[in-house]
Amino acid sequence: MAFTYLTNVSLAEAQREYFEHMRKLGFAAGAEMIPVSDACGRVTEKAVYAHISAPHYAASAMDGVALKAMDTFGATETTPVTLSAGRFTVVDTGDPIPSDCDAVIMVEDIVSHENGSITIHAPAAPWQHIRQIGEDVCAGEMILPGGTEITPAAMGAMLAGGVLEVSVLRRPVIGIIPTGDEIVPPCADPKPGDIIEFNSTIFSAMVSGWGATAKTYPIVPDQFDQIRDAVSKAADECDVVLLNAGSSAGREDYSSSVIRQLGEVLYHGIAIKPGKPTILGNVGSTPVLGVPGYPVSGIIVIEQLLRPLIDLWFRRDAGAAEKVKAVLTRPVVSGLKYQEFVRVRMGEVGGRLTASPLARGSGVVTSFMKADGILTVPQGTEGFEAGQEVEVTLLHAPERLRQTLVVIGSHDPLLDELGDLLHQEDPNLFMSSSHVGSMGGIMAVRRGEAHAAGIHLLDTESGAYNISFLKKHFPQGGVHLIRCVGRQQGLMVQKGNPLGITGFADVAKPDLRYVNRQKGSGTRILMDYLCKTEGVDPAAVYGYDREELTHTSVAVQIASDSADAGLGIYSAAQLYDLDFLPICIEEYDLLIPDSAWETPMVRQLIRTLQSDAFRDRLMAMGGYTLDRPGEEIPWMEL
Amino acid sequence: MAFTYLTNVSLAEAQREYFEHMRKLGFAAGAEMIPVSDACGRVTEKAVYAHISAPHYAASAMDGVALKAMDTFGATETTPVTLSAGRFTVVDTGDPIPSDCDAVIMVEDIVSHENGSITIHAPAAPWQHIRQIGEDVCAGEMILPGGTEITPAAMGAMLAGGVLEVSVLRRPVIGIIPTGDEIVPPCADPKPGDIIEFNSTIFSAMVSGWGATAKTYPIVPDQFDQIRDAVSKAADECDVVLLNAGSSAGREDYSSSVIRQLGEVLYHGIAIKPGKPTILGNVGSTPVLGVPGYPVSGIIVIEQLLRPLIDLWFRRDAGAAEKVKAVLTRPVVSGLKYQEFVRVRMGEVGGRLTASPLARGSGVVTSFMKADGILTVPQGTEGFEAGQEVEVTLLHAPERLRQTLVVIGSHDPLLDELGDLLHQEDPNLFMSSSHVGSMGGIMAVRRGEAHAAGIHLLDTESGAYNISFLKKHFPQGGVHLIRCVGRQQGLMVQKGNPLGITGFADVAKPDLRYVNRQKGSGTRILMDYLCKTEGVDPAAVYGYDREELTHTSVAVQIASDSADAGLGIYSAAQLYDLDFLPICIEEYDLLIPDSAWETPMVRQLIRTLQSDAFRDRLMAMGGYTLDRPGEEIPWMEL
Repeated sequence: MAFTYLTNVSLAEAQREYFEHMRKLGFAAGAEMIPVSDACGRVTEKAVYAHISAPHYAASAMDGVALKAMDTFGATETTPVTLSAGRFTVVDTGDPIPSDCDAVIMVEDIVSHENGSITIHAPAAPWQHIRQIGEDVCAGEMILPGGTEITPAAMGAMLAGGVLEVSVLRRPVIGIIPTGDEIVPPCADPKPGDIIEFNSTIFSAMVSGWGATAKTYPIVPDQFDQIRDAVSKAADECDVVLLNAGSSAGREDYSSSVIRQLGEVLYHGIAIKPGKPTILGNVGSTPVLGVPGYPVSGIIVIEQLLRPLIDLWFRRDAGAAEKVKAVLTRPVVSGLKYQEFVRVRMGEVGGRLTASPLARGSGVVTSFMKADGILTVPQGTEGFEAGQEVEVTLLHAPERLRQTLVVIGSHDPLLDELGDLLHQEDPNLFMSSSHVGSMGGIMAVRRGEAHAAGIHLLDTESGAYNISFLKKHFPQGGVHLIRCVGRQQGLMVQKGNPLGITGFADVAKPDLRYVNRQKGSGTRILMDYLCKTEGVDPAAVYGYDREELTHTSVAVQIASDSADAGLGIYSAAQLYDLDFLPICIEEYDLLIPDSAWETPMVRQLIRTLQSDAFRDRLMAMGGYTLDRPGEEIPWMEL
Repeated sequence: MAFTYLTNVSLAEAQREYFEHMRKLGFAAGAEMIPVSDACGRVTEKAVYAHISAPHYAASAMDGVALKAMDTFGATETTPVTLSAGRFTVVDTGDPIPSDCDAVIMVEDIVSHENGSITIHAPAAPWQHIRQIGEDVCAGEMILPGGTEITPAAMGAMLAGGVLEVSVLRRPVIGIIPTGDEIVPPCADPKPGDIIEFNSTIFSAMVSGWGATAKTYPIVPDQFDQIRDAVSKAADECDVVLLNAGSSAGREDYSSSVIRQLGEVLYHGIAIKPGKPTILGNVGSTPVLGVPGYPVSGIIVIEQLLRPLIDLWFRRDAGAAEKVKAVLTRPVVSGLKYQEFVRVRMGEVGGRLTASPLARGSGVVTSFMKADGILTVPQGTEGFEAGQEVEVTLLHAPERLRQTLVVIGSHDPLLDELGDLLHQEDPNLFMSSSHVGSMGGIMAVRRGEAHAAGIHLLDTESGAYNISFLKKHFPQGGVHLIRCVGRQQGLMVQKGNPLGITGFADVAKPDLRYVNRQKGSGTRILMDYLCKTEGVDPAAVYGYDREELTHTSVAVQIASDSADAGLGIYSAAQLYDLDFLPICIEEYDLLIPDSAWETPMVRQLIRTLQSDAFRDRLMAMGGYTLDRPGEEIPWMEL
């Protein structure tokens, strides 16, 4: 039943062989003439030569008079030379020099007389104060070599040289064919089972950035004949075709046989992860790529195989992407058989660059949006260990990493609001937050991986929050504790409370589907504390082992009737219009290591915590209390 | 007569005060709703939240059957559980999970029976093989903060979250008004005195690259009322107005009084060079910039004052441009009163980065095209010395500098052809050539500033070329001499030889206007040699002191009747259809230092010299002979 791929070729070999194959078939850019004014960023097809010189006439470089230099030879203070009208011409800067003149004398250096003559007290050197023809560019000179990207200044130089149109490499047209019975165009109300087709939008934007033009075709159902007709049409109309498979690996996959019937398939299956089911084929001289349906796989395949194909078209070298060295915060385990691309979040904490692997599910498009870099695990390698130094390909400017506040710890939607306000207050600053629970946050701060951690840890002995945990994990101090919010924790249940839940102990009722949080989260610790104090046996709770990573994702399971109850904060319940049984108000504070304390990011964070804008947002979300946010808690002394 | 500017404010102060002034007047971006599919590269106006969860339904992650996990509890190999049809649902990957089911068992792990029932030999854990609702994004969660540039992946995340339209910051419209009686639209046949208007094309391309929209108005003549009407209209229609003055400083300048009549002028005159006559004003909340007419001044002013204004609109920080340290090859002398921007050509020779100042005339737009970086000389500084380490702002990627063959020496148009072919053969490689004459080339190689130098130096004692000069300047060796071309030198005269010149000695004729080459050039050395051998007194040659830097620029002076004769090569004469009196065939060779000998650039240079394509181009240009080009000449042994 599992699909067997024909090949497991390495990426490097697939690239080399496929590009060579396409080159031999004549895959290369044609040229087109376009107006110079539209040519910014385009690539010259061949060398461009000036048609006229610039300046195209000898011009005065000063305001004054143009004359024959020879007429002024011998002039001195004591033996001035006087020229009658007719032997000179008054010129302004930029005026043409009359053909019988070869020098300009500045207006300051002449004495004018009423009869129209002038007197000169020093000789003019021939060609003084004249801007010579061709000073900028001479007719016939090469302005730009072929294969050169046209800059704004080059546009000016061409127009100065009388070149109004330029032959540039044509942009390749990339045809994108989405396929699949379950695929629907983007909409706000998809039915269960519908898969929203957003790959073509992502791919279009990517190829536009590389200088190509995207052409997206209507969605084609899973029917061999219809897919074949669509590929055949696109191969005629486009320079490259992307056949974007339905994301279901369980359905019959027609892509390979369609391409084989119309042309040839060089590879079906490449040793990369994600992206293995990729097909590299062609119809005539048009490359046809079978791209996997999962967005993350698709992005990787487009980046690794379509982008160099477009570079081949433009005969350009894309250059190596910028790489940096970073310390891996968690191990990455990979299979020997594949080259794997792992999206990582990065941070610069205490002068050290860290890389944290993001969720690896290939359906998770947000992981690409949150990623700061891509870590490549070579084929034949089992992965990397935590603490190992690895090389990461950056997805944005390295300065940005230095300006990003790295928050790792307990989840609360207020962190997103805080990040939004922080960036609004100072557009130089960014925030990146990862949800690993309160204990995960404490550990991240200890390991020097975070500038801040959100924590709400209940000391089940004293009933107090956070302080006893700091005393245990930071006996020497070295961290600051900042007051953030009090937040209402409680039991979220479906709207109208259909199961008639009256208190926490009801979570053990038969037929109640509970949804829990992950180990190490403050809310999980609260759950276990409540089980103990209320005499509930966790083994009796159906769904105790079902773990979600955020308050929001617990709420969404309940709202969509995939669960009946779960512990969480009031703002998450309010977001989904759930009923809420309050249990306690907990202290959600921010932990900040000494090394980050004086950074601009943390300074701005504290100002933002104290701002009215932050207060307004929390009040709108509901379930929060604010008591001197941003104030430091002297936890060592308590 | 000289125009007196009102202010000489420093650039930093002008930026600070003007931007603060405009901010107070309410200069800031509005927002607009646009489809997500058009939003790549745009900036979110405010935070974007998901409307729906993705996935929006619980989906099977496998092909198999969906069922209640509880129904399978207790199943083992020895005590299997059999479920009748109706107690499970067959699902493919991606299919929705029926609401009464909470687990999927893979198709491989079930045994199907003819009566439609199935047998299971292991219990299912609740929620196994189910892709939970909101795994990618939960409804209500923030997808993007405000003020964030939208990437392709972010477009996908928004569509996955049911967001079809997004509020983004509106692109500012930059109105460009060219003014001046002498200004004409780009054309191939300007009349003497016409100045081609290409600034608006350069400025449009620059502002488009910064995310703004350019709107160019028709050229306005130098009439106060017409300029005022144009500015008033543009201030209504646009978000920023650029008033691009006629380039003539001698004509009355209406810009300042027009802006003052319609609004206010904050500064007229800024302490930068080029760019001093800049005007910073406003009409209502619309900034109006008076931009000098010379293209180089204009580019500097647009970069220094319009670009940060656009960044202010988008509330973004442009970030510091990339700077590198380089060794200055020639001194830069600057005035104390101004901050000066000097365009430099850069090269990496022998691992050392060098910066060579380019022509500083502000009319020379090609200098911007040839520039690799900008050197800033601060106000209050007299400049920098040759050999000093300076900081240069790069204009393109630093890798490109490492891949650029730096050729400094004698001019020949064949160098441009060589550079074009080199880049065509290997798109990674570039060539940059500077014309400083043969002796200048030898000195550049000695100082470690060039990978290659074109030289054709006649030993007037022996009549041989180049070798005696190398023996003198490189007594220890350390340089390679590569055969390039033989080229026909001669006297270029006007078409039809109207002065009836019969030989070199005629250059001393009265009424003949000669045009010479610069000192240190091989052609100048030939000139002096010919004067000596033919008994011509240089003082008798009218124009002996008139120096041009290239064969082409000598030819263009003759072709445009600005001179009658000059020494130069046949290909330059042919380019301008001049008559030509042959004098000698000289050896034009390439000098390459040891340090560059094994670089990829020099290896490719030699292959290109030996190519048929190079031969074909030289034959088309005429006047060249090729005898084993690319072969090394064992000069030490000769």
